[in-house]
Amino acid sequence: MAEKLKIISLGGLNEIGKNLTVYEYGGDIIVVDVGMGFPDDDMYGIDVVIPDFTYLIKNQDKIRGIFLTHGHEDHIGSIPYLLRSVNAPIYATRMTAGLVKLKLEEHRLLDKTKLITCEAGEVVKAGKFSVEFIHVNHSIADAVAFAIKTPVGTCIHTGDFKIDSTPIQGGMIDLARLGELGKKGVLALLCDSTNVERPGYTKSERCVGASFDALFRNCESRIIVTTFASNVDRIQQVISVAAKYGRKVAVTGRSMENALRVSTELGYMNVPEGTLVDLNHIKGLPKNKICIITTGSQGETMSALTRIAFSTHRQVDIQAGDRVIISASAIPGNENSIGNVVNELYRKGAEVVNERVGELHVSGHACQDELRIIHALIKPKFFIPLHGEQRHLKVHAKLAQEMGMDPRHIVISDIGKVIELTSNSIKLNGTVPAGKVFVDGYGVGDVGSVVLRDRKHLAEDGMIVVVTSMSGENGAVVSGPDIITRGFVYVKESEGLMEELRRVAMEALERCEKTHTTDWAAIKGEIKNDLSGFLYKKTKRNPMILPVIMEV
Amino acid sequence: MAEKLKIISLGGLNEIGKNLTVYEYGGDIIVVDVGMGFPDDDMYGIDVVIPDFTYLIKNQDKIRGIFLTHGHEDHIGSIPYLLRSVNAPIYATRMTAGLVKLKLEEHRLLDKTKLITCEAGEVVKAGKFSVEFIHVNHSIADAVAFAIKTPVGTCIHTGDFKIDSTPIQGGMIDLARLGELGKKGVLALLCDSTNVERPGYTKSERCVGASFDALFRNCESRIIVTTFASNVDRIQQVISVAAKYGRKVAVTGRSMENALRVSTELGYMNVPEGTLVDLNHIKGLPKNKICIITTGSQGETMSALTRIAFSTHRQVDIQAGDRVIISASAIPGNENSIGNVVNELYRKGAEVVNERVGELHVSGHACQDELRIIHALIKPKFFIPLHGEQRHLKVHAKLAQEMGMDPRHIVISDIGKVIELTSNSIKLNGTVPAGKVFVDGYGVGDVGSVVLRDRKHLAEDGMIVVVTSMSGENGAVVSGPDIITRGFVYVKESEGLMEELRRVAMEALERCEKTHTTDWAAIKGEIKNDLSGFLYKKTKRNPMILPVIMEV
Repeated sequence: MAEKLKIISLGGLNEIGKNLTVYEYGGDIIVVDVGMGFPDDDMYGIDVVIPDFTYLIKNQDKIRGIFLTHGHEDHIGSIPYLLRSVNAPIYATRMTAGLVKLKLEEHRLLDKTKLITCEAGEVVKAGKFSVEFIHVNHSIADAVAFAIKTPVGTCIHTGDFKIDSTPIQGGMIDLARLGELGKKGVLALLCDSTNVERPGYTKSERCVGASFDALFRNCESRIIVTTFASNVDRIQQVISVAAKYGRKVAVTGRSMENALRVSTELGYMNVPEGTLVDLNHIKGLPKNKICIITTGSQGETMSALTRIAFSTHRQVDIQAGDRVIISASAIPGNENSIGNVVNELYRKGAEVVNERVGELHVSGHACQDELRIIHALIKPKFFIPLHGEQRHLKVHAKLAQEMGMDPRHIVISDIGKVIELTSNSIKLNGTVPAGKVFVDGYGVGDVGSVVLRDRKHLAEDGMIVVVTSMSGENGAVVSGPDIITRGFVYVKESEGLMEELRRVAMEALERCEKTHTTDWAAIKGEIKNDLSGFLYKKTKRNPMILPVIMEV
Repeated sequence: MAEKLKIISLGGLNEIGKNLTVYEYGGDIIVVDVGMGFPDDDMYGIDVVIPDFTYLIKNQDKIRGIFLTHGHEDHIGSIPYLLRSVNAPIYATRMTAGLVKLKLEEHRLLDKTKLITCEAGEVVKAGKFSVEFIHVNHSIADAVAFAIKTPVGTCIHTGDFKIDSTPIQGGMIDLARLGELGKKGVLALLCDSTNVERPGYTKSERCVGASFDALFRNCESRIIVTTFASNVDRIQQVISVAAKYGRKVAVTGRSMENALRVSTELGYMNVPEGTLVDLNHIKGLPKNKICIITTGSQGETMSALTRIAFSTHRQVDIQAGDRVIISASAIPGNENSIGNVVNELYRKGAEVVNERVGELHVSGHACQDELRIIHALIKPKFFIPLHGEQRHLKVHAKLAQEMGMDPRHIVISDIGKVIELTSNSIKLNGTVPAGKVFVDGYGVGDVGSVVLRDRKHLAEDGMIVVVTSMSGENGAVVSGPDIITRGFVYVKESEGLMEELRRVAMEALERCEKTHTTDWAAIKGEIKNDLSGFLYKKTKRNPMILPVIMEV
């Protein structure tokens, strides 16, 4: 029986983020992207979410290379966690490699990792695979798609992309090469679905520059611009327009400083001589000579813009009349944090300019008409939508069908599902371990659904600890019960309620005392039961009740 | 010295929701709206937020009436809480009164409350005030603005409104009357600011009907529509188009059933004979004869649509091919819950149609050009923007200035601030108590910022209880320390860590034992200090640590 190509996503299907796709043929595996995800609202206390690496760890001897499409966290953020168990060479373009390098340094993994820089157009051999880097447009410099040649045919893995005919640098996505591959015959297309619900085309990055120009021209105030630190082209446009109007530029926020440093070192940023100044030196300048670029476009609590707004930034304080430009759209879920910062800026007398006012942000992902162009150019035999929740994958499948594709040639997969491909067949066959691993502080995987359920319970109604010491001989109460609560009610104003809780607990204890039982678990059960019943009736609340018995 | 008119908002400024404005002149007070707010993301466990009623309770003898602009929760939701302490007649239009009545029945307040129904055009005398009801358009039937005649001049209080020249019922907002009042001279305009950031005009409710028509025409599947239960006109449009295409309509979700009942009883709903059927009877019908109207447009966990999607609804299960129409926009913060429901619907094979596809929702609030019309018609001497966060109030003030208003005649107030008006002056003078009172279960005001801080702390990293029994004579450890955790880590997989925690606590206890201290607070402090230091270094987490000492 001939070998089959297996394609397994460990992230990025039925979720946004933590993108990771495995291509396996015989004894060879390559991994495309190793991203991280961000916690949902109900994942209390979780810092980041990473893929379950079990399958890769088990098959680490087969891994011939890790290939990265671009440097966003949802495509490279889990690399340090994977590299704790798996060692494999990493292939990436210059900008992506620069960002990965920072990450490896931080996690002290740089020495033992092979990080290889490639250029668009290059082809890398990795076991029975050969991987060609193809230039695409995206909201970060140096993004690529991959044409992955396998013994059963060529797969095109787009990564995140858009079609920008007037990008700030790097030229338009290499549609010619994609078309050429399409003519030769492509077995499968694995394509970004992020914007598939949006009709039409995503606008060019360049149109944001025109909006900046209008906002800088004739402006007599200080200008503060916030955007995503990774969007080098956006930052370039701010710097260019600032220089054009004779403003000096200072930068604040760690990720913004890093991004500027890396992109400048690698030659992705063109800063006119004398334009960049230190944040400390900006105070002496006239207002209309000042431009500050800052992190905080999502209203993040500790970001520089939030600190500037709430007067907790050490070097910059917002001033009445300042023009604050928010060159970003809200990631769903962040509207309220952003709103808080904007309100504070207004309260301090600043003028806030956002998307509502002009074209101050464009997406980095292809909309429907761009996706249609890609499907039409590549004409794949099989189609696997990637990067999206169920609704994106389904809408993308429908779009492919409307482009004439046989629905039996489209596979909507899920993380952990194995897609098997031959030169003329596609099917789902089996699964491998996959899921969300939670990172909380230094801990990886030690917080799971039970712990999160407890956190949610504690968050909703707080907790009540009932402590009693009892005789180990006959179960007599020696002291207590003492009632301690946190996150439940104001104790001082609820002394009556506290007294009642003590009484209810005491009654349960007395009932148990009579039986001389020393079955602590049973006694705890009685206390918990009585208290929770009493409390729900009295307050309609359900705090966590934790009976503790000290045997003395 | 002549009396001054005082205007005090106890809600609705620097926040969205819980609208309540007090008008006071001499010994008379009238209250406009008594709304409730919804908790922010960080108000764990809070059900609703209500205004601080201290000022009204203190001055309850002066209150001549409560006037309601319309029946949305953010304008009527706190009435039952106010009526616990204050008794005053309530004046409202028929639809609003119908919804208030439901609320009063639920809280067993109907008997002792005077609820008076008024019509647009009516004038109510209330102490030295006379209040004229003026018809406006909004996303609920029977909304009004008030022209409040006072001894120092007339105030126009718009409530929530838009200008809809082709509404489903009730006719266009009474611009003629507003213009007439403007010509006679208006002292102050208090105006809705919700949509002031949006340029242009809000579209007419009627255009949603056209979209419905296109989606119902030639559709062979079952159609399920979700929208806000209070939007009677929207529901009317669904019913009309269903009837037009021969579909029977069934309704699910408690608030939707209530809304339909009240609006039908009061004559706001025109249901063609035989169109409405019971949900249980719909199963026998052919798919293209079925239309279900349901709650759940915001992805609420317990709503009918969520239960239908996740197959926990007792009567309706989603079927492949069902067309689900979401006739609502996401209230910021709800995007993810809505997304979860939509993904599940897609997973089950349904087709989901939302705003992206067509004009399936329009706002109930005036955009910039509508606000300009109101300012131009009313030509007030003074302007007080209402209903908005700081950014809305500031942008609205700027709009008024651009319409030619003297900036010194515009007052951006805050909850609790007292605005004093004479016939030719406006100023802020003093404050009264105001704030957010939290309702959690049956408790009103017994959860405040300290309790919420504890809940947040518990939510982030869980908690660790350290229980020890010690001799009351010499501080010797009798038993323990026992370590109990919740919401911290998986205990089974972290036995080593638990052992270390016990050791660290024991060391602290032994240190204290040597001093023979029985200062329990000091001993607890030592335990807490040592454990939190150890934990942060080891895990980078900061759980709540609760040392408990039982004296035996």
